[in-house]
Amino acid sequence: MSFSFLTHLECPRCHTQYDADEQAHLCTCGSPLLARYDLVAAKEQLSKEMLQQREPTLWRYHELLPVRSAENVVSLGEGMTPLLPLPRLGEKLALRHLYVKDEGVIPTGSFKARGAAVGVSRARELGVRTLAMPTNGNAGGAWATYSARAGLDAVVVMPEGAPLITRNECAISGAHLFLVNGLISDAGAIVGRAVKAHGWYDASTLKEPYRIEGKKTMGYELAEQFHWEVPDVILYPTGGGVGIIGIYKALRELQEMGWIGERLPRLVAVQSTGCAPIVKAWQEGRDTSEMWKNSKTVAFGINVPKALGDFLVLEAVRGTGGCALAVDDDELLQAQVELASSEGLFVCPEGAATLVAARKLRQQGWIHEGERVVLLNTGSGIKYPDTVQVSPPLLQPQDDIPLA
Amino acid sequence: MSFSFLTHLECPRCHTQYDADEQAHLCTCGSPLLARYDLVAAKEQLSKEMLQQREPTLWRYHELLPVRSAENVVSLGEGMTPLLPLPRLGEKLALRHLYVKDEGVIPTGSFKARGAAVGVSRARELGVRTLAMPTNGNAGGAWATYSARAGLDAVVVMPEGAPLITRNECAISGAHLFLVNGLISDAGAIVGRAVKAHGWYDASTLKEPYRIEGKKTMGYELAEQFHWEVPDVILYPTGGGVGIIGIYKALRELQEMGWIGERLPRLVAVQSTGCAPIVKAWQEGRDTSEMWKNSKTVAFGINVPKALGDFLVLEAVRGTGGCALAVDDDELLQAQVELASSEGLFVCPEGAATLVAARKLRQQGWIHEGERVVLLNTGSGIKYPDTVQVSPPLLQPQDDIPLA
Repeated sequence: MSFSFLTHLECPRCHTQYDADEQAHLCTCGSPLLARYDLVAAKEQLSKEMLQQREPTLWRYHELLPVRSAENVVSLGEGMTPLLPLPRLGEKLALRHLYVKDEGVIPTGSFKARGAAVGVSRARELGVRTLAMPTNGNAGGAWATYSARAGLDAVVVMPEGAPLITRNECAISGAHLFLVNGLISDAGAIVGRAVKAHGWYDASTLKEPYRIEGKKTMGYELAEQFHWEVPDVILYPTGGGVGIIGIYKALRELQEMGWIGERLPRLVAVQSTGCAPIVKAWQEGRDTSEMWKNSKTVAFGINVPKALGDFLVLEAVRGTGGCALAVDDDELLQAQVELASSEGLFVCPEGAATLVAARKLRQQGWIHEGERVVLLNTGSGIKYPDTVQVSPPLLQPQDDIPLA
Repeated sequence: MSFSFLTHLECPRCHTQYDADEQAHLCTCGSPLLARYDLVAAKEQLSKEMLQQREPTLWRYHELLPVRSAENVVSLGEGMTPLLPLPRLGEKLALRHLYVKDEGVIPTGSFKARGAAVGVSRARELGVRTLAMPTNGNAGGAWATYSARAGLDAVVVMPEGAPLITRNECAISGAHLFLVNGLISDAGAIVGRAVKAHGWYDASTLKEPYRIEGKKTMGYELAEQFHWEVPDVILYPTGGGVGIIGIYKALRELQEMGWIGERLPRLVAVQSTGCAPIVKAWQEGRDTSEMWKNSKTVAFGINVPKALGDFLVLEAVRGTGGCALAVDDDELLQAQVELASSEGLFVCPEGAATLVAARKLRQQGWIHEGERVVLLNTGSGIKYPDTVQVSPPLLQPQDDIPLA
């Protein structure tokens, strides 16, 4: 019985192979590396029925994850997040089967926990002592948290404007936290210099190959939660794009194992009109994106002006017959209110963007009424106190509640 | 096949019985009412093996919950929260089997979601249209959220000092939110007048009998997660005390079904030295508590100067050979840092209080080294941005990371 069927790392651009049991970052050609598995052997050992008996965390798929030994698993109970129907909004949008996959219900309140759990576990297994990363907030909070659980040192650099609570997550977990008067790309440059100077492990988005392995479990879970009949459309708020690349990778792996059929969900990359490099590249039929100048959006997590994995995002979108589109901040803030007041889901602004996109695509006829459509909410609204402005009336103890 | 084996409501003080299918609040004697079930019939239908096949939410125990029809279930995927070992802190405290039950990983980021899910579901089933409640924040956020999901109107009154993010949860969910210049007891008085005046459903703590049914599922889950061999000690941060009453009720029900043995975990009620009415009553050997004057603690959720269910909390503590003790704010804030930096758990201040209590009880020899000890963390630290003060260094894009 193997705990993991990891075989090697592979460059998705030039197909060079690397030893998976050495610390590795980018390919010599500059591309991110992807983990590969012996899926034939995995299929022999693992069955869908076995999965049902396992704990509701992403580690239920451990044969298809890169951690070789159970004792190296660093876990806070992450994964198997709820898949919830949205009946009222479905009716409003004329969609009979609208769902949200709610990644707010996970340690640290953000889907970044998946990448951190698997990435930190594997880093520890490979002997890492100190890791460093730039972040728009949530990834830093998650990696700091999991590093503390693993007993690793974490160095985190985030823009001054990143959500305040993610500073607290880093600081209280004992990470070395720095703010930068700039964007995540500025934070990335600082980290790039620091890992060279100090020999730290570079945990930047897609600069190590295992964060994506954690993120891909969203794809496994969706397949399992839909009883291995994958949905028709998945809308994903796209910044660095690791999640959408991961979901695509997971679905391809499940196909190779024969666990799902030929048809894949159409993957939709949703961005903000204030930062839409992937959308622009998709519209122009290009394979890579260009740096988006002066990017700005209230949905901080998708403020990524140039993603290292842009070509993989575009491949995921094209390979599934998907599309890419951008939505305005005003629209997504309105959608956030709609999700909370109609369905009781207080989602993050990034997640709310997918509802706007679903509505537009439905109106255009790109999504049909009977299709099963999943909004991927990447985190909880409680991490973003400033996106909701509230001025409730103040009563004195002897006051009565005034009727509207 | 019955979805629920609910039979009637019963007063735990004077034993008067009430029809469970009518809206009910307190007993005529002033006591909260408890839901009772046909446990013999439940045991015939339900087995431990069946549970394993069910979804990882609290609704897996639906036969022992009060909602009569599956279609009335209002859910956001709550329950089956992680049970996590704390090996580093265990070593520090000389406890070989120290765990946390992490209620931060649940919709709304607080264990209040359990009570709200079951309470709102049952309220809707009984025809309620508008409910009203006082809250220290998290319960209001949860009930507002689940009311939105159920299509009910919610009226929420909270102290001005309650955590800011819980205002947002109420407002964005469409609840009618009011602040009060006072404590939760002042909010309670305002709600008391309003429900009389307007005929609203009073959802105040223990003034309806179903919130506790949601909270008790923590007890079922702990039993199931420990493979029906219950732990030795459970430490619970006690404000209104619904959770500890609920866990005790759940364990007694499991005993009656023969699913667990004679031995029960010793339940420990942990309070703040700034608000410790239960501790005082326990020390003085009394059956009820007295109103705690000028109560004050950074752990806002346990700032409850007089709990309606105080006699039930004291019964749970005494009935299990447990105890009650209070900890200082300074100590619990330090414990919050310890949990995050040693174990990667960013818990709420209330949850952190249980670590302080465990350490004291271990030092006193009240807890033994080999006992299995569970800290009940009632919510996520991300809902309390003000309890952590952080001043990270600010870099300019051209700066390098300074080495300490």
